[in-house]
Amino acid sequence: MSAVIRILGIDPGSVATGWGVIDCAGTRLSYVASGVIRTKRGAKPAQKLVQIFDGLTALLGEHKPNQSAVEETFVNANPRDALVLGQARGVALLAPAMAGLSVAEYAANSVKKSVVGRGHADKKQVQSMIRVLLPKCGEIKSDEADALAVAICHAHHAGHNLMIKRQKAS
Amino acid sequence: MSAVIRILGIDPGSVATGWGVIDCAGTRLSYVASGVIRTKRGAKPAQKLVQIFDGLTALLGEHKPNQSAVEETFVNANPRDALVLGQARGVALLAPAMAGLSVAEYAANSVKKSVVGRGHADKKQVQSMIRVLLPKCGEIKSDEADALAVAICHAHHAGHNLMIKRQKAS
Repeated sequence: MSAVIRILGIDPGSVATGWGVIDCAGTRLSYVASGVIRTKRGAKPAQKLVQIFDGLTALLGEHKPNQSAVEETFVNANPRDALVLGQARGVALLAPAMAGLSVAEYAANSVKKSVVGRGHADKKQVQSMIRVLLPKCGEIKSDEADALAVAICHAHHAGHNLMIKRQKAS
Repeated sequence: MSAVIRILGIDPGSVATGWGVIDCAGTRLSYVASGVIRTKRGAKPAQKLVQIFDGLTALLGEHKPNQSAVEETFVNANPRDALVLGQARGVALLAPAMAGLSVAEYAANSVKKSVVGRGHADKKQVQSMIRVLLPKCGEIKSDEADALAVAICHAHHAGHNLMIKRQKAS
């Protein structure tokens, strides 16, 4: 039996930060939990970041993942929006690193390729593929689906890296 | 005698984060400490953010400021650079907020206006004005000067707000 790796995927945003936890045992993936951390409307930027950090820290404590992965945001926005997104993303990278986890980053099209099979899938396609791959997830929001997708992408890469290690060792 | 407010100013960056602490008693400002948190070359993005967060948390514990202020970065960079700067900035906003401090933000030209008297001063002018306003700071780097400048800008605004409050109360 393969050891189980528990992976936290994060899709950061200043308004809504999606998160998803999966277990990965060899090639077998299973859904653990997912959700969305919403920041309070009208809260100051620093307070919104505290809400994201506290939300992530709480679920790190609750679900105890071993590894984490964050989507490398595709930046087609203007620099001002990129800066605001970057602030939320900084906190999303910080929280698992502070908890001692490795934090992998994957480009958006790698994430989509892992889940849908091609790099230019839309949000709906990602959402329905997540329901096929992780049937226990039930009805999930698009931010949760994106977070679970980055966790799955990491599982594929982690599995691949493990295979290479084994081949080198044998 | 006016109560002393201790202000931490931060000039965030993914490579070098300048910080400066000043005491403000009425209109009288005095230098307490300043420095630069440098992230390790070649470290992963999440690890660099941990270094910035740990650095800020340590000096918050050491100097115990009451208030903090961060420069609202002027974004003329491309979206990719803005995202990376945003990540460091997110951590610079988070650390003092997690310590229970208010975190004010000031546009770069307000900061320069507070220190040099006009919004389009260059780094050298800011640096030499800081040495005039806070003679005890000695030889300081440009990142430290920028951080002290945002602290001074906050002191001016805090003093102004206090004056308005007093006028309203009288």
